[in-house]
Amino acid sequence: MDNDEFRRQAHELVDWMADYLATLEERPVKSRVEPGSIAEMLPEAGPESGEDMNDVFADFREIILPGMTHWQHPMFMAYFPANSSYPSVLAEMLTATLGAQCMSWETSPAAAELEGRVVSWLRDWLGLPDDFEGVIQDTASTATLCALLSARERATGFKINEQGFEGRRFAIYCSTEAHSSIEKDVRIAGFGSSALRKIPVDDDFAMRPRALAECIEADRAEGVTPLCVIAALGTTSSTAIDPIDAIGEICREQDVWLHVDAAYAGTALLLPEFRWMLGSGESVDSFVVNPHKWMATNFDCTAYYVRDAESLVRTFDIQPEYLRTRVDTQVRNYRDWGIQLGRRFRALKLWFVMRSFGRSGLQAMIRRHIEYGQWLVDTIDNHPSFERLAPAPLNCVCFRWLPANTKDEAAIERANRKLLSQIQDDGRLYITHTRLAGRYALRLVPGQTRVERGHVEAAWALIEETARDLAAA
Amino acid sequence: MDNDEFRRQAHELVDWMADYLATLEERPVKSRVEPGSIAEMLPEAGPESGEDMNDVFADFREIILPGMTHWQHPMFMAYFPANSSYPSVLAEMLTATLGAQCMSWETSPAAAELEGRVVSWLRDWLGLPDDFEGVIQDTASTATLCALLSARERATGFKINEQGFEGRRFAIYCSTEAHSSIEKDVRIAGFGSSALRKIPVDDDFAMRPRALAECIEADRAEGVTPLCVIAALGTTSSTAIDPIDAIGEICREQDVWLHVDAAYAGTALLLPEFRWMLGSGESVDSFVVNPHKWMATNFDCTAYYVRDAESLVRTFDIQPEYLRTRVDTQVRNYRDWGIQLGRRFRALKLWFVMRSFGRSGLQAMIRRHIEYGQWLVDTIDNHPSFERLAPAPLNCVCFRWLPANTKDEAAIERANRKLLSQIQDDGRLYITHTRLAGRYALRLVPGQTRVERGHVEAAWALIEETARDLAAA
Repeated sequence: MDNDEFRRQAHELVDWMADYLATLEERPVKSRVEPGSIAEMLPEAGPESGEDMNDVFADFREIILPGMTHWQHPMFMAYFPANSSYPSVLAEMLTATLGAQCMSWETSPAAAELEGRVVSWLRDWLGLPDDFEGVIQDTASTATLCALLSARERATGFKINEQGFEGRRFAIYCSTEAHSSIEKDVRIAGFGSSALRKIPVDDDFAMRPRALAECIEADRAEGVTPLCVIAALGTTSSTAIDPIDAIGEICREQDVWLHVDAAYAGTALLLPEFRWMLGSGESVDSFVVNPHKWMATNFDCTAYYVRDAESLVRTFDIQPEYLRTRVDTQVRNYRDWGIQLGRRFRALKLWFVMRSFGRSGLQAMIRRHIEYGQWLVDTIDNHPSFERLAPAPLNCVCFRWLPANTKDEAAIERANRKLLSQIQDDGRLYITHTRLAGRYALRLVPGQTRVERGHVEAAWALIEETARDLAAA
Repeated sequence: MDNDEFRRQAHELVDWMADYLATLEERPVKSRVEPGSIAEMLPEAGPESGEDMNDVFADFREIILPGMTHWQHPMFMAYFPANSSYPSVLAEMLTATLGAQCMSWETSPAAAELEGRVVSWLRDWLGLPDDFEGVIQDTASTATLCALLSARERATGFKINEQGFEGRRFAIYCSTEAHSSIEKDVRIAGFGSSALRKIPVDDDFAMRPRALAECIEADRAEGVTPLCVIAALGTTSSTAIDPIDAIGEICREQDVWLHVDAAYAGTALLLPEFRWMLGSGESVDSFVVNPHKWMATNFDCTAYYVRDAESLVRTFDIQPEYLRTRVDTQVRNYRDWGIQLGRRFRALKLWFVMRSFGRSGLQAMIRRHIEYGQWLVDTIDNHPSFERLAPAPLNCVCFRWLPANTKDEAAIERANRKLLSQIQDDGRLYITHTRLAGRYALRLVPGQTRVERGHVEAAWALIEETARDLAAA
């Protein structure tokens, strides 16, 4: 393909992209293909000779597209969103064109310096302590792994990096509601799942600080070193807010690293009226938020903040001769701020989004989404056949259907599973489920960049109608 | 920004993108900005109100662009390349637009099934054993970490995942020339650097199998469990090829996991005449190659292959309720094939590249690059003032200048450092350095998608001329 052909094809793609985003609602949000049906349409061997881009693009439209679940569809209310926005897509076009690999300052000076700027803009917008320093990583999974590793190394004088584990036992704490990536990270870092203490939660699904304190004491008494507490600012199931200040006080007393996982809900710190979620933030050692979830910035874009950047860098720093540059002492080489050596130019999309929306634009979007969440809360609370299963401080609403004359827990679960299957197969709305205090819960998050009040009302009408039909069947 | 505005801006960007790629050679390949100078031009606080996209784009061109090192420039001959290509950029535009998060089959069925297909196309094109199963990850750093973790868990019956390290000592082996990410991974996984045995290399900088065997024996004798050998198919400094079959035989005898790091040079396996580099591949447990380096596919795109996919999945598999879907037993959920939960739709760009180039198109490109490398080898070997410092089986050429009347090693190094600084400051060519057998080496890799014979000749002319000027000064 030459430059002219690229220009022609790219213009054609742009029209398709704009059309796709304008007409997203005409497509089912969740793909309804059967397992294996896409693979069947793809040849088993790659082509010997180059093919025409028109044929490739036609296959994209005809084979791939019907098999996609549309994450940018306003009726995507499953999981947590992975939102993009127009400015973010524009930035991704430039990022792909530059094709810069941003491991070191020298390999892309502007990328490194822009990254420094946008993470501090974001820190200030979220009201995080101003001695926090940030870096953009790929996902919260790896950011939390970085927190665990920094805590591990700081507590041992960087000895495990050198000598490995030598018999000393450690404990890591999170609530029973914490994200599965934490257990994965605990395993990767060599602690083993048995080192992870899942602290009980209160009726609101937030960590009980007293239980945490007791658990830490018990560990110390047994010669186990309490290493790190991972508090959730918004759990995955129900966006429960762990009491960060109370937990922080315990961490400070006990000299334990406090990492805050605010992957989704952290974006709501843009709103002064939600700053209570973080408290003073004084005792927080590290903090992760994903602009790629609720802040209109294409996946992947995770902002990871630490108070003690030196511990982070010392945990990861290795300087082989072939990576040395003449300016290493004057600049930030972000490759030493995380797991991977290679890095995309992720700061560009965050910059485009923050400038294009402005702080007030992002605030307006988040406020709107929270309003939709609260409308749902009211609607469900006033509905005779539905029951809310957790507080919904933001816009993640967990609930279940209570079919008439069904009192048995197992039967209620069966009915709700059926309801969810029906909705997912319908294709107009994508929601998912979780389990809260043993109960099977439907879970709806109206947080897509393009979602409007009408979509949320339509979503609720569909749920209600589907339940009515099931009851009548 | 509304849809019309997006369409207008995206068309404008496309013209800029095509122009940028067509006129890349008019820019200095390496940015010449001073540390801090870009940051100085960026405000310290983000904007309260949204800004016009025209202003953002203008700042991109005026502030960011002069601070970029241009990785897609044909005179980028530093490090290993991180190549893109026109079809790859087109695919990235679509990926950004779809904005799909591909953690599970259900969240993007076509992405999961396309990924399965393209990794097996690539496996076959590279001549890898056909019982290998593949997955696309972000970087070789994480793929090698996956190999270490799978080896760790398989060897312990998945016990470290559960109980952590319990006194048993392990050893991991690579050559003295292996990539720094391996030591980083060994630390992350909890072994500690002291568990890493750096096996001596021969005069060609390839691992000595006999020294490996002796080291493994010595470890066993001391009660240390030999866990994993990481062989390089193309070391970072000089693309030395470790003898995979001989190493594999030792690994088989000793029941040690063999991981092959072919991040860059693995792409040359596209050429039947370079299949000798892998040997039979029979004893290889896992293999990593980065299409984002030498195969025209935008960073990030790492293909990781394993023979025992079950061990990989069992190492990472955690199934919280909120991630369960109705089809989990029938499909591949690639989130369980690596570190991160969230995943971009990376298969699309690899598909676009493989179809658009075809196998023969990629082969032609790689052959051309290797030819340039061999031309350089001849040129240097016939030059009275330059000396080659390592074999160059492909297109990574390590050499140094030998100024007249300079016999002292320290003086030669000083002269070469000066030569490199001069070239890097000039801006027309970007090359880097390394150290081989204690000697400071200049390192030139003509492997950019757009590089042509004329560029390589111009690069060499610049090096020669700069050396001449320095000698005359």
